[in-house]
Amino acid sequence: MAATLKSTPRQDGFFMPAEFSCHKQTWMLWPERTDNWRQGAKPAQKTFVKVALAISQFEPVTMGVNQSQFQNARAMLPTHIRVVEMSNNDSWMRDCGPTFVVNGKGGVRLVDWDFNAWGGLEGGLYFPWHLDDLIPQKVAEIESIDRYKAPMVLEGGSIHVDGEGTLLTTEECLLNHNRNPNLSKKDIENILCDYTGVSHFIWLEAGIFNDETSGHVDNIACFIRPGLVALSWTDDHNDPQYPRSKAAYDQLSRAKDARGRSIEVVKIHQPDPVIITPEESEGVDSVDGTLPRNAGDRMAASYINFYLCNGGAVVPTFDDHHDAQALKILQEYMPERRVVGVPAREILLGGGNIHCITQQQPIG
Amino acid sequence: MAATLKSTPRQDGFFMPAEFSCHKQTWMLWPERTDNWRQGAKPAQKTFVKVALAISQFEPVTMGVNQSQFQNARAMLPTHIRVVEMSNNDSWMRDCGPTFVVNGKGGVRLVDWDFNAWGGLEGGLYFPWHLDDLIPQKVAEIESIDRYKAPMVLEGGSIHVDGEGTLLTTEECLLNHNRNPNLSKKDIENILCDYTGVSHFIWLEAGIFNDETSGHVDNIACFIRPGLVALSWTDDHNDPQYPRSKAAYDQLSRAKDARGRSIEVVKIHQPDPVIITPEESEGVDSVDGTLPRNAGDRMAASYINFYLCNGGAVVPTFDDHHDAQALKILQEYMPERRVVGVPAREILLGGGNIHCITQQQPIG
Repeated sequence: MAATLKSTPRQDGFFMPAEFSCHKQTWMLWPERTDNWRQGAKPAQKTFVKVALAISQFEPVTMGVNQSQFQNARAMLPTHIRVVEMSNNDSWMRDCGPTFVVNGKGGVRLVDWDFNAWGGLEGGLYFPWHLDDLIPQKVAEIESIDRYKAPMVLEGGSIHVDGEGTLLTTEECLLNHNRNPNLSKKDIENILCDYTGVSHFIWLEAGIFNDETSGHVDNIACFIRPGLVALSWTDDHNDPQYPRSKAAYDQLSRAKDARGRSIEVVKIHQPDPVIITPEESEGVDSVDGTLPRNAGDRMAASYINFYLCNGGAVVPTFDDHHDAQALKILQEYMPERRVVGVPAREILLGGGNIHCITQQQPIG
Repeated sequence: MAATLKSTPRQDGFFMPAEFSCHKQTWMLWPERTDNWRQGAKPAQKTFVKVALAISQFEPVTMGVNQSQFQNARAMLPTHIRVVEMSNNDSWMRDCGPTFVVNGKGGVRLVDWDFNAWGGLEGGLYFPWHLDDLIPQKVAEIESIDRYKAPMVLEGGSIHVDGEGTLLTTEECLLNHNRNPNLSKKDIENILCDYTGVSHFIWLEAGIFNDETSGHVDNIACFIRPGLVALSWTDDHNDPQYPRSKAAYDQLSRAKDARGRSIEVVKIHQPDPVIITPEESEGVDSVDGTLPRNAGDRMAASYINFYLCNGGAVVPTFDDHHDAQALKILQEYMPERRVVGVPAREILLGGGNIHCITQQQPIG
C-alpha cells in the first residue's frame, strides 16, 4: 500500500531522522546522459559502481536505472546490488529522491518534494526534469510506503537535520528566487517544520563557491552527530571559498541547536582547486539547455559531500594532498564508523559528489 | 541478492508448485500498445483494472508498467495495487514472465525462459520483444530472488503443472518449429524436468481453435487440483473446436498422472463463437509486423483461461448464455474458493485472457 496522504508528517507524528541513524538501504540512480557525463558516462558509471560497492559493505543498495541502461548496469554492478527500472533525467538521488520520515514506532513514510532541476527555467541545469520528479513516488510504490506530497520545491541535498529538531540549510539555495518565489523565509520554515518535524533552523548564508546547486548545504557542512558539524574549510584567505567558509564558521560557532546546545565545528580543509581539463570538457555532448562543462572551470570540490551509512562513512577523494588529512580527521571524529575514501573526480565532473548521488532509507 | 544460478532447479531441490498453491502475490503488466489494443488501449486498461481488483480481494497485486503509462496506471488502479516501472512490449505476464519455483523449505527462486513473442520471426505476434524478454530478470531484481536461465523458448501459458510431478501441455505449441526447432520432444521434456521439477508429461495434441499462441494449454485445459482437470468443451460436432476438445478429452481420460492416478475431466462448455466486430477492428492501429485484428475473425474464447489465487478463482465471462453455467460448475468443483466472473471481451480482443495476463508468485 503506497497511499498519498493528505495530512503532514508532523500531524501524524513522523519526522526525518538524521543520516547517522540506522538505514534499511541506500538508493542510487545510474548515470547515463551524455550531455552531462563525459565519454558516454562510462567513467562516471565505473565510479558509481565503486560508491555502490563501498556502501554495500555496510548496508543494502538499490540502483534505479533507465530501461536503456538496465542490462549494462546489471552487468557492471555486483550481484548483491539490487537493480530496478526507474526512469530518470539524471542520477542525483539525493536531490530528486524522497525524504524518508519515521515515527519512532516502526513506521516509515516518505516526503515527495517538488523538483525543478535546481532552478527550473531560470537557471536549472537541464530540461525537462519530469522523470526525476516521479522518483519519490516510484520508490514509494516499490517499497509499499505511504507518501506525503509537500507543497514546495526542495532538493534533499539542500537540508541536513540532526534528528533532534535542528535543520541546517543555506539561504543561497532555499531563498533563491528560482525555487519557491512565492514563499517567504517564514513560509519555508513552516513547511519544513510540517514535513521534516524540525523546530529549529540554522541558516548559513552560502555554500561552496561555484556550486551549481545554488549552494547546497550538503557540500559545505553536515552533522556528524547532534552538536557536531563538519565544515569545508580553507586557510587561503585569497581563495573565493574563504569568506564563505569563514562566514559559515562564525554562524555555526554562534548557533544553538534545537536542544539549546552550542555547535562544535570540525574544519575539513578543502582540496586544492579542481579544474575541468580540456579533455574532460570535450567528452561531453553539447546540448542547449544543459549546463556546459567548460575547460578551465573550477568545480565545487569538498570532502563534506560524504555519505553516512550503517557503520560506515563513504568520503570523496580527489587525488589531492589534503585527502589523507580529511579522511584522518573524519575517522577521529567518527570512531564508531569505518571511513572509506572513494576517488570521486568523475562524479564531481557531473556537478556533485557522493552525498548527492545517494539517499538513505531509514529503518522504522 | 538476485544471482543468476548456473545449476538447475532440479539439482537444487526446487520445483514449480501448482497455481492452486498459496501465493505471495500476483504479477501483471499494463496494456498500452495501440497496434494490439483498440481505442488507445483504454477499454483494455479498464478491464485490467477490474481483473487486478478482483484478484486483490484475495492476494496482493503488483502491476508492471512502461514509463509512458506510469502515472495513468497509478491513477486508474486502486492504491492497494502496487505499480512499478517495468518496460514491456505488451502485457502478457503469463507468457513473458517468470516461472517461480520453491523447495518446500521456504526458498523461492524463478526460472527465466527465452521469449520470442509466440514464434519469433516465423509467425510471432509482434516485433521486437526485447523488453518482454527482460521481465523475469526485472521481477527477480525487485524481489531479490535468485534466477535460473533456462535454455529454451517457452511461454508460461503453454504449461500447467499439478505440483505433484505432472506437466500438462500441447504438442501444437511446444513442438512448433518456431519455438525450439533444434530440440526434440525428448530434449524439451528433459529441460522441463530440470527446470520445473516434473517427472511425467501429458501431451495434448492441440489447444483452442484459432488461438494465436499456437494452442497454449492454458486456454483449453487446466488442473483444478491434482487428478482433476477442467476442459473447454463444445457439444456442437460441427464447431471446429469439437475435434480438438474431443481429442483432449480422450487423451485425458486415458492418461495417468505422475502418481499413477487417473484424471477426472470436468467439461466447461465454451461460449458461442465470439467474433471481432468492424468497430472493434477499426480501433486498432495498423502496423506491419503486428498481428492484425480483422473484423469477422473468430477469437479463441474459453472459460478455462481463469486464474486461481488465494481462496479465489477469477474467471473470464463473455456476456454469453453459457457464462452462468461455467461459473456454477467451477464453483461446484472448487468449494474451497470463491469464483468471481469478470467480463473479459476486451482482453480476448488483444489475443488472450485472464490467465494470460497474470503470473503467480508462490510463498516459499
